Amino acid sequence: MKYDFTYYNPTRIHFGKESLSELKGELGLYGDNVLLMYGKGSVKRTGIYDKVNDILSACGKRVTELGGIKPNPSYSQVLEGARLVRENGIDLILAVGGGSVIDCAKAVSVAAYCDGDAWTKYWIDFEEPTGRIVPVGSVLTMAGTGSEMNGGSVITNEEVMLKNGRVFPSSVYPKFSILNPEFTYSVPEYQMVSGIFDTMSHLMEQYFSGDDDNVTDYLLEGLMRSLIVSAEKALENPNDYEARSNIMWAATMGLNTVTGVSKTQDWEVHMIEHQIGAYTDCAHGIGLGVISVPYYKYIYKYGIKKFVRFAHNVFDIEISTVSDDETALKGIAALGDFIKKLGIPDNLRAIGVTEEMLKPIADSCVTGGGYYEMRAEDILKVLEAAF
Amino acid sequence: MKYDFTYYNPTRIHFGKESLSELKGELGLYGDNVLLMYGKGSVKRTGIYDKVNDILSACGKRVTELGGIKPNPSYSQVLEGARLVRENGIDLILAVGGGSVIDCAKAVSVAAYCDGDAWTKYWIDFEEPTGRIVPVGSVLTMAGTGSEMNGGSVITNEEVMLKNGRVFPSSVYPKFSILNPEFTYSVPEYQMVSGIFDTMSHLMEQYFSGDDDNVTDYLLEGLMRSLIVSAEKALENPNDYEARSNIMWAATMGLNTVTGVSKTQDWEVHMIEHQIGAYTDCAHGIGLGVISVPYYKYIYKYGIKKFVRFAHNVFDIEISTVSDDETALKGIAALGDFIKKLGIPDNLRAIGVTEEMLKPIADSCVTGGGYYEMRAEDILKVLEAAF
Repeated sequence: MKYDFTYYNPTRIHFGKESLSELKGELGLYGDNVLLMYGKGSVKRTGIYDKVNDILSACGKRVTELGGIKPNPSYSQVLEGARLVRENGIDLILAVGGGSVIDCAKAVSVAAYCDGDAWTKYWIDFEEPTGRIVPVGSVLTMAGTGSEMNGGSVITNEEVMLKNGRVFPSSVYPKFSILNPEFTYSVPEYQMVSGIFDTMSHLMEQYFSGDDDNVTDYLLEGLMRSLIVSAEKALENPNDYEARSNIMWAATMGLNTVTGVSKTQDWEVHMIEHQIGAYTDCAHGIGLGVISVPYYKYIYKYGIKKFVRFAHNVFDIEISTVSDDETALKGIAALGDFIKKLGIPDNLRAIGVTEEMLKPIADSCVTGGGYYEMRAEDILKVLEAAF
Repeated sequence: MKYDFTYYNPTRIHFGKESLSELKGELGLYGDNVLLMYGKGSVKRTGIYDKVNDILSACGKRVTELGGIKPNPSYSQVLEGARLVRENGIDLILAVGGGSVIDCAKAVSVAAYCDGDAWTKYWIDFEEPTGRIVPVGSVLTMAGTGSEMNGGSVITNEEVMLKNGRVFPSSVYPKFSILNPEFTYSVPEYQMVSGIFDTMSHLMEQYFSGDDDNVTDYLLEGLMRSLIVSAEKALENPNDYEARSNIMWAATMGLNTVTGVSKTQDWEVHMIEHQIGAYTDCAHGIGLGVISVPYYKYIYKYGIKKFVRFAHNVFDIEISTVSDDETALKGIAALGDFIKKLGIPDNLRAIGVTEEMLKPIADSCVTGGGYYEMRAEDILKVLEAAF
């Protein structure tokens, strides 16, 4: 733990089959006015909406609704939520859904009583929130983003065509999150896989940087091993409770900041995928899966010791007596096999990228990286290799 | 994650070389009256006491002192602290020291305004605390117990000759803990080793139980791997900052409850050591080290799959094609080698146990366990094997 850090995570997690029964106790800590936020309607089809509403009614809450939150939540929806919070004297924002709904709920929580334009203040100038922050709670229905136990909030401003993400401090983290793995059963396989690989990528982005030896990297290896084992089980049987519950908890642990302490990090795969997503609207985790192998093949030489360690500690590959390159490349190949098993394509064409898009995508990415500082021309080479 | 759980840990950790500089900000959150608790004087010799006092003075705090907290903090010291809290209108209890001082500070925090006899209420009847709880903060000077980020409090009532431990809810956790690995440099090697093996034992006690597959066991494996690597480095060079910082963080993570979620657990090694300690006053981690191998040899057959996994995932032992017993026993032997490298003796005689003590120790242990339910006669066999 070479680098100093502060760790503080005050989200209370209720996890398991019976976890929704904890909602009543949590609601008792707040006033009567609740803003209920949810997405495009799947929570109504699955009955989770009704279950939550029944508890809200039983607790005598006055509920204001804001449904239809988009997969990429828009700033206009944030402003709509902020208006509802002020007009109805909202005491608690309850997000029921996946990461998008929770990201949007956090945005509403800081925008409602923001002095000035919230977009400029929080998603352009990245200021710390001041003034009243309305508490947020969540009932999670999709595993992957980790938003249920952190300060992340990615918002798209459609007027200016910008999708900006930021991490708010702990005052904006959900006060509580209810994680029932059974609530994720109804997610389509494509979305489940996207969430799994989003989690895998979060772990690798934190892992592949630095030449220090620290506890955090060992925790990341453990989470990757567990995720890989459970992902394969969940693909065989999506109703395997143990597998789905492991995937859900690995996703939460993987981005609740504890797996990032005292670490330099990479995040360039996410930067590239953001721009692929901007051009194709592909699912985030799928885009990450398509470019990961070409990206790691491009950079592994600059952090070869870590890639050898990855091969051995995550994929149980014997360390080659011939060369570190051999071990490292076997590890990346094993990652490729995992991606293939997940059913994620191995080329950008399959997710709607055309040859003409490659250069514009490369030129629009935020540059940076872990073991190697990627410039636009490097990114273009990775995209060509992935094409 | 087969079993439902609630996870909530509100301790704010400041970690690293410069972490003491965060004390000023923390003190600003509380009133002027501080009870400063510390142990037998090592914090004065090392200068940490002066550094903390300088910050308290600069913040204009009125400081009441309670020094001389014993390695096994006594209930009479708890009552003394409680009286000082009431008489001086204490706003914050600041524990500077190892787990004993922090355990005692938590006890004072709930005893000060306890309605009735605190010993009976909290350490006999294990009631949840009611009424005012005085906030506790800590500056940690020894790694091992994990008390800096949990609700544990072991207190010895000398009048009735009972040493009882309990885990308080999160309202009693330290509000903040300052972890500077350099503050652990001055701990004698014997104490450092005791802390390392205490941590290793916490991890194994949580690990060796259950036949489920869960994320938590993978995290435990990662922590064990990291601890073993760093322990060997710290033995070679006690001033290896990276090694000491990893040991400190592994100790905190290893008992901050996240490594126990959704797990059945064992803890019988701790139960046996408590009684060995009662008879010999040996250092806790040393006692744990002496009995661990005989204990695991006695029970491994009942959880053999987990012991095979331990051998492979923690000690990198190849899985035998001959028998699971071979792999499992190789893993236990590797644990024995680690204990030997730490310089912990392999027999009870070396820590002052006599043959006459064996039966009384066995008969006085709290029975139980993980893969096998230990009765007094089983414990006696383990003690005889360890003798």
